[in-house]
Amino acid sequence: MQTLWSQRYALCSQRMRSSAVRELLKLTEKPDVISFAGGLPAPEVFPLEAIENAVHRVMTNWGAQSLQYGMTEGIPRLREFIARNCARYGINVQPENVLITCGSQQALDLIGKIFLNPGDRILLEKPTYLGALQAWNAYQAEYVTVEMDDEGMRTDQMEAALRAGPKFIYVLPNFQNPSGVTMSMERRLRLIELAHHYGIPLIEDDPYGQLRYEGENLPPLVELDSQARCNSPYSGNVIYLSTFSKTLAPGLRLGWIIAPAEVIDRLVIAKQGTDLHTGTFVQMVAHEVAKSGFLDEHVTTIRTIYRERRDAMLQAMEDYFPPGVSWTKPQGGLFLWVTMPSEMDSLEVFKKAVEKKVAFVPGDAFFAAGDIRNSMRLNFSNADPGKIREGIRRLGLVLTECMEGEALTQVMSSATTR
Amino acid sequence: MQTLWSQRYALCSQRMRSSAVRELLKLTEKPDVISFAGGLPAPEVFPLEAIENAVHRVMTNWGAQSLQYGMTEGIPRLREFIARNCARYGINVQPENVLITCGSQQALDLIGKIFLNPGDRILLEKPTYLGALQAWNAYQAEYVTVEMDDEGMRTDQMEAALRAGPKFIYVLPNFQNPSGVTMSMERRLRLIELAHHYGIPLIEDDPYGQLRYEGENLPPLVELDSQARCNSPYSGNVIYLSTFSKTLAPGLRLGWIIAPAEVIDRLVIAKQGTDLHTGTFVQMVAHEVAKSGFLDEHVTTIRTIYRERRDAMLQAMEDYFPPGVSWTKPQGGLFLWVTMPSEMDSLEVFKKAVEKKVAFVPGDAFFAAGDIRNSMRLNFSNADPGKIREGIRRLGLVLTECMEGEALTQVMSSATTR
Repeated sequence: MQTLWSQRYALCSQRMRSSAVRELLKLTEKPDVISFAGGLPAPEVFPLEAIENAVHRVMTNWGAQSLQYGMTEGIPRLREFIARNCARYGINVQPENVLITCGSQQALDLIGKIFLNPGDRILLEKPTYLGALQAWNAYQAEYVTVEMDDEGMRTDQMEAALRAGPKFIYVLPNFQNPSGVTMSMERRLRLIELAHHYGIPLIEDDPYGQLRYEGENLPPLVELDSQARCNSPYSGNVIYLSTFSKTLAPGLRLGWIIAPAEVIDRLVIAKQGTDLHTGTFVQMVAHEVAKSGFLDEHVTTIRTIYRERRDAMLQAMEDYFPPGVSWTKPQGGLFLWVTMPSEMDSLEVFKKAVEKKVAFVPGDAFFAAGDIRNSMRLNFSNADPGKIREGIRRLGLVLTECMEGEALTQVMSSATTR
Repeated sequence: MQTLWSQRYALCSQRMRSSAVRELLKLTEKPDVISFAGGLPAPEVFPLEAIENAVHRVMTNWGAQSLQYGMTEGIPRLREFIARNCARYGINVQPENVLITCGSQQALDLIGKIFLNPGDRILLEKPTYLGALQAWNAYQAEYVTVEMDDEGMRTDQMEAALRAGPKFIYVLPNFQNPSGVTMSMERRLRLIELAHHYGIPLIEDDPYGQLRYEGENLPPLVELDSQARCNSPYSGNVIYLSTFSKTLAPGLRLGWIIAPAEVIDRLVIAKQGTDLHTGTFVQMVAHEVAKSGFLDEHVTTIRTIYRERRDAMLQAMEDYFPPGVSWTKPQGGLFLWVTMPSEMDSLEVFKKAVEKKVAFVPGDAFFAAGDIRNSMRLNFSNADPGKIREGIRRLGLVLTECMEGEALTQVMSSATTR
C-alpha cells in the first residue's frame, strides 16, 4: 500500500542502492553453501573469554559510567590508547587527533557529511571498497577512477584524474578490498608527491594493515605525508581510518579516524547530529581487552590461521581453476581477486555457482561505474582450509563449464554468421 | 596550522554547530556544580546486575555470533520483541516495520538522509528537541514552527505552517524535550486530522513515553493515524521513534524506528552506507535483559525515583523562585521548562548560575530560529532530591538577583531618558 512517504524521498535516496554483497549474502546463508562472498572474520578466532573478562572488569569498576551517555569524541582512555598504538606504526598523533566511530563505515559517512557537496568528485582506485561508494553516493558524489595493477594504483596514469579536481583521493594501500593488492613503496611515495603537487588531500583506509602474512610492513601514507611536510606548504593532508573489526570483533562496531584537530572538530559536530556518540560500554570493553597487550598476541594467532587459509585457497586455485583465469596473491588481508576471460559475465557465473553451493561477490559491485563484469572477489578468512579446497573445486567446475559454454556460443555464433 | 582540508568543507558543514548542551555540559562537569543541564538518566538506576547476567548468557549461548557482523535491519529477535511490545501500546506492527538504530539520534539522521533535499521545510514545535535541529541542519533543512501551550502544539495556529508545504511534521507528544508538556487527546486528534487534510506525514518521537508519573497514558499518534485510516486515502503516515536510552541505558546506544515497510527498506539502504548495522553484541544483551519482562519492573522503579525528583524540584521552585517566573508541571519524562520575564536573557542568567555552582540549558538552543531568550530547560532525573532542592535554592537566588539587576537597569535607563 502506498503511503504519503513514498512521494517524498530525497533525490540522493534514489542513488542509494542496496549493497550487492549484503543482498547476495542472504542468498548464500544456507548451511550447505560454501561462501567466499562475505568479508567476515573467522568466528572461531573471536576472543570470547578475554571479552567476557573485560566486561566483568568494566561492570565492576565503571558499571554506571559504562552505561551512561558519553563524549562524542570517544572515551578518553581509548583515544589515548589508539594514539599511542599508532605511534608504533610510525603515525605520530595526539589523542585529540582521534575520533572513535561506529566501525570504519561510519568514518566514511562522516567524511562524506563534512566534505561533500552534490557533484563533488572523488578519486578512487578501480576497483574499490563498495562500502565507500555506498557511503558517498548518499552525498551525490561523482567518481574519477585510476586503474590498479599488482603494485596498486597506477600512479603513472593519475594525472587526468587529478586534473578533474577531485575533493580528495581515497585509497586502501594494504591488501586492498576487493583486490588484495598492496601498494608498493615507490607508488606510495609517488602518490604523496602527486597529492602535494596538485594540492589534493587523501583518505587512507587501513582496516587490514595488521593482518600481513608475508613480506615487510610498508609505511602508511599518513607517515610518508608527514615526512614530506618539509618540502610542502601543507601538512596533515592524510586522514587515516582503521578499525577493531578485523583484529577484535566486528559486532562491537568500533573504528577510528586519525585527522588534523580542526578536521576532528568538524567531524565531532557532524557525529553529534548523527548518533551523539559511539557506545560507551563497547568502547570500555574494547579498551580493557586491548590495553594489556592481549590484542598483539591475538593478532598473531589470527595471522597464522588466515595465512593457512590464504595458502589453501591459492593452492586449490592452482589445482582446480581452468587456464585463462588469473588471480592476485595477497600478502595479507581477507580477499583475493579473480579475473576471468573478458567475455565472461560474473553474474552468470554467480548464478551457476550458487546452484553448485559455492558463492562469491561478482566484481562489478566494486567499480564506481559498474562496468567491468569479468571479475570476482573471494574471501578466504571465513572457511577452514578443507572447506576452502572443496569450495574452490566446485568453483573450478563452474568456471570450466561456463568457459566451455562461452566457447561453444562463440563457435555457434561464428557458424551462424558464415 | 592550516591543512588542505580546511578549504574543502561542504556547504552544509557550515550550518552544523556544536550542540550548546554538549559544550555547556563540559563547563558544568565539576563535581561541586549541581547540574540540571544534561538529559542524563540517573546512573544509580542502571540495572548493572541484570546487564552483566545478560552478557554472560549472550557469551555462553551466542558468543561468536554476538561478535560477528549482522543484518542492517537489526537482529531478528530484538525486532520481534519490539514489534510485540509496541502492540501493548496500541501500535500494531510486524517485525519488518522495525529498524534498530544507534539511539534515537541516528533515527533522526537516517530520516534526514532519505527524505531531505536542501531547503526542504520541516514543521516543528516551538521549542523542540535540539538534537533534531542538529540532525537536520546537516541536510540543510529549513523550519516552520508552531507555538506550544500546556496542551502541546497549538493546532489552532497550524494552518500557515502547513500551507508552507513542509516535508513532514515533527512532534514529541509525551513529556516533550525541552518543555515537559504532553499533547492533549483533543490536540492529537486534531493534528492527525490536519495532517491527513493537508497530506503531510508525521514523525512522532517518543523517548519518554513509558516514564509517566501521573495521569493516564494517551494513545500515540501512530495509533490514532491507523484508526483514522478508514476516512483517508493514506495509511502509515506516522513514523514512530523510541529508544532503550531512558528505560535501560543510553551507553548501549539502542533505539528503533517503526515505519511502513517501504520506508524501512529505504532506511536500511541508508543505514548500510552509514554504519553497516548497529552492534550485534549490545542488541543481544538488550534483548536478554528485556525479554523476561524485567524491563517492565525496572521501569516501575525508575518512575518512582523520577517522580520523587520531579516533585522535589516543583516544590523547591515554589519555595525559592521569585514572582514573575513560571514553569511547566510535567506528567512524566526528564525535563521542565522555566519562563522568565521577557526582558531576561538566559545566557546571562546561566553565567551567574555557574558562578553559584548550578547549571541548566539556556532555552534559545531549542528554538529553530534561536530567537527566544527568556527560558531555560531543567532536568530533574540526574540529581537526588536533596541536591535538587539545594540547586533550585541557588538558582532562585540567581534569578532574584538578575531580576533585581534588570529592574534597576530599567529604572536607571528610564531615569537617564527623563
